[in-house]
Amino acid sequence: MKSNRRDFLRNSTLAGAGAFVGSFLQGCVPAKEESNLAGIIEAVKKPHTQKFNMSGYAAPPLPVVRVGFIGLGDRGSGAVQRLSYIEGVEIRALCDKREAAVKASQKYLQSVGRPVAEEFFGTEDSWKKLAEMPDIDLIYQCTPWVMHTPVAVYAMENGKHVACEVPIARTIDECWQLVETSEKTRKHCMMLENCCYDFFELLTLNMARQGMFGDIVHGEGAYIHNLVDMIFRKPDDSRQSDNAYTDMWRLKENAERTGNLYPTHGLGPVCQVMNINRGDKMDYLTSMSTNDFTLGKYASGLAAADDFYKPFVGRPYRGNMNTSLVKTSLGRTIMIQHDISSVRPYSRLHVISGTSGAAIKYPEPERIALGHEWISEKEMEDVIDKFTPEIVKRVGELAKKVGGHGGMDFIMDWRLIDCLRNGLPLDQDVYDGALWSAIAPLSEWSVANRSQSIDVPDFTGGSWKTNKPHDINLEKGGNTLVLEIKESKPELQLNIS
Amino acid sequence: MKSNRRDFLRNSTLAGAGAFVGSFLQGCVPAKEESNLAGIIEAVKKPHTQKFNMSGYAAPPLPVVRVGFIGLGDRGSGAVQRLSYIEGVEIRALCDKREAAVKASQKYLQSVGRPVAEEFFGTEDSWKKLAEMPDIDLIYQCTPWVMHTPVAVYAMENGKHVACEVPIARTIDECWQLVETSEKTRKHCMMLENCCYDFFELLTLNMARQGMFGDIVHGEGAYIHNLVDMIFRKPDDSRQSDNAYTDMWRLKENAERTGNLYPTHGLGPVCQVMNINRGDKMDYLTSMSTNDFTLGKYASGLAAADDFYKPFVGRPYRGNMNTSLVKTSLGRTIMIQHDISSVRPYSRLHVISGTSGAAIKYPEPERIALGHEWISEKEMEDVIDKFTPEIVKRVGELAKKVGGHGGMDFIMDWRLIDCLRNGLPLDQDVYDGALWSAIAPLSEWSVANRSQSIDVPDFTGGSWKTNKPHDINLEKGGNTLVLEIKESKPELQLNIS
Repeated sequence: MKSNRRDFLRNSTLAGAGAFVGSFLQGCVPAKEESNLAGIIEAVKKPHTQKFNMSGYAAPPLPVVRVGFIGLGDRGSGAVQRLSYIEGVEIRALCDKREAAVKASQKYLQSVGRPVAEEFFGTEDSWKKLAEMPDIDLIYQCTPWVMHTPVAVYAMENGKHVACEVPIARTIDECWQLVETSEKTRKHCMMLENCCYDFFELLTLNMARQGMFGDIVHGEGAYIHNLVDMIFRKPDDSRQSDNAYTDMWRLKENAERTGNLYPTHGLGPVCQVMNINRGDKMDYLTSMSTNDFTLGKYASGLAAADDFYKPFVGRPYRGNMNTSLVKTSLGRTIMIQHDISSVRPYSRLHVISGTSGAAIKYPEPERIALGHEWISEKEMEDVIDKFTPEIVKRVGELAKKVGGHGGMDFIMDWRLIDCLRNGLPLDQDVYDGALWSAIAPLSEWSVANRSQSIDVPDFTGGSWKTNKPHDINLEKGGNTLVLEIKESKPELQLNIS
Repeated sequence: MKSNRRDFLRNSTLAGAGAFVGSFLQGCVPAKEESNLAGIIEAVKKPHTQKFNMSGYAAPPLPVVRVGFIGLGDRGSGAVQRLSYIEGVEIRALCDKREAAVKASQKYLQSVGRPVAEEFFGTEDSWKKLAEMPDIDLIYQCTPWVMHTPVAVYAMENGKHVACEVPIARTIDECWQLVETSEKTRKHCMMLENCCYDFFELLTLNMARQGMFGDIVHGEGAYIHNLVDMIFRKPDDSRQSDNAYTDMWRLKENAERTGNLYPTHGLGPVCQVMNINRGDKMDYLTSMSTNDFTLGKYASGLAAADDFYKPFVGRPYRGNMNTSLVKTSLGRTIMIQHDISSVRPYSRLHVISGTSGAAIKYPEPERIALGHEWISEKEMEDVIDKFTPEIVKRVGELAKKVGGHGGMDFIMDWRLIDCLRNGLPLDQDVYDGALWSAIAPLSEWSVANRSQSIDVPDFTGGSWKTNKPHDINLEKGGNTLVLEIKESKPELQLNIS
């Protein structure tokens, strides 16, 4: 990416930073009145009658899945690479407002012998042209959060299935837009919650399905990861070669919103274990944030040495730690935490607590209890042997070779493509993405209102009572091949053991 | 204790069980109207002007501390033993409604060469006579929770210092009674929060005091311990030799109240790290409980085989897991959890998270981070060398020999007696005990009201702004000797290294 620094700067920094500062100046109004909380109570209470139930929805099979990528930063460029290893994927189009990003992925496709993809870049709206292409089946988007819902809705309106990075929405209104559009168009709208495909999470999901923890009573998830240095990097920072947080969008989110802005990594796997939207649903939520003890000081420190950072001083930065609690209709609870600014070890907490057992990841090692003691390493091996779900057996080892957060990204991508090719329901439907993302604005409201609780909308319109859990054991499908990288050129490989 | 089974039954079971069942029948009204929540909003808002600041209060020195014990179950009988090892302690009186319990502790005193103590037993009010004795300085009470505040208040009114098991109060009204009585009588009212004296907790407290974690942002504590089997044991259960939960009082608490009934073990050490009541204060709380997935079914199972348990069926049992969140006036947060009915490993979670480091205990091993990784075992040894506070250096090893939850109980008792003998402020004053206990009724209210938040009273009447942290480095005192057990007879031993 370094060789494209000039393009990057031309296309994004000046305009982007300008918009950013302008937004900051508008951001001085109290949190309660900010746009992402305006009308939230009405949005929460909005009645919803399903036009069509997208849970369990099987779209017509697509033996060849023609994909267009929108957003080619750190996550998008990685996704291009991963999808290039999957049988039946045609990468038809690449879009980023930064030409350099598009060229980089194009170059990658060339290097692995893939056909040239159509290119879209240069403006904030370049993605619309891609979404309007007639010969695309799936939009795979990895844009800044603010673009997620607008792009996803436009793509569905234009007849495309959508897979979108987390969180797929920033407001309850956006959640409803996604639900209504997906139901109306009968297009899949999957949030790419990759942590649902991590190995321990899938293991505990399968164990829960088989009753090993008894009745699931309580779950916990978190995203605790110090990002302070990364989110404050200037667009022209030479360390920014990983292409992350274009135009410093993630700092902006954390400078204007207080709550759990990033709930889905911890929440998704717990919701799957609890069959949320598929037998249970969220009822209400309460949330509490600490004050900011880090970001404001950090900004002041930077500004003392560099005038660029002066507009970043004195902003209503997000507090260090947010803890949110959710009660479900069956009386279970979920605790979700988020902290990107405290100095502490990474934790993507995953706790499952039932009437006859428990599981915990973070701090490592991963642990399982089927009684009042954590099982031994040897017993853990037996548990892994016995309860590893079929999806992991099928592509787990291949996924580790491809990479992407240790393999989970690839398991997710492979599963998505395999479902589309076989005409199977997706594991994560629009109701899941909307619900898991909704925690962010709901938590913002609760934090802004002295931790008063707030109802969680039922995006399924009541269908949660009869919706069925998704298939982790590949009862259908699972026949999509994985290409093997040989001297930078993928070849078909029979991956099914 | 087994030989005293008959006395135990005569004195307690019939009357006790009767009262218990009667209370159960009254317990059918909705939680909101139950007595421990009645008037809570008024109690929370009650203005308080300190008559006298008991934080930092130094009572006149008592070179000899004459102690009377009220409640000689599992905890009380252990305390008799521990205090018999401490210089300057005279055990003057023993009380339990069960004669057998009194005789057992008397027998112990005899075995270690201590003078005969005065005995009180036989009625529910026997303890009053002990509290009225003129030649007692300190009441050490380990009664069922419902007796804590009435006994403590009566003891202070009768001129005694009080040390009382956790929680020291069950309602906000009781908290105020304790505060007002302690201020009026200028008698110490210490809650015996032993976990404040556990080794890792004291280590992290000292590290926090020395700024090793930076600004403390967030803390977590828990009491997660499956007690189902124990609390359902009938008074005549042959396994009940540990003498715990006389008259099944703990089951009763969990059958009629829903919230975090037992918050202080996890909370106390975190509050000390955050200097709550001494530079910061709690502002508001929100709380969420799961439904009960265990106790009701367990009662039904027992009742199917034994008519004794029929009245226990269908009660409004406490949910498995409670999670409560507290916001402080300086903008920090505390998460506290409680679960006694799920099958999972024991956890007395202790998490400290600051702007430059973190600590966690449970799951074990104990961990410290001074950056983004947990330090190594070798580095942990160095940290322990450097930051073990003086109180642990002085009596830590002796405490491990005496026992009592690994030693912490004895460190606590020794420190209590040492402070009284030297006329020093106690580490835990009435404001701490009231506040930490108040989490229970506040959480009950929040749980009963859909997790709406509730203000936390400032029991210090504003003095939290200037109250000083307590002394963990024995800047004063620390000269009380510890007796060594030799052939069941304690002898004076110079314990100071």
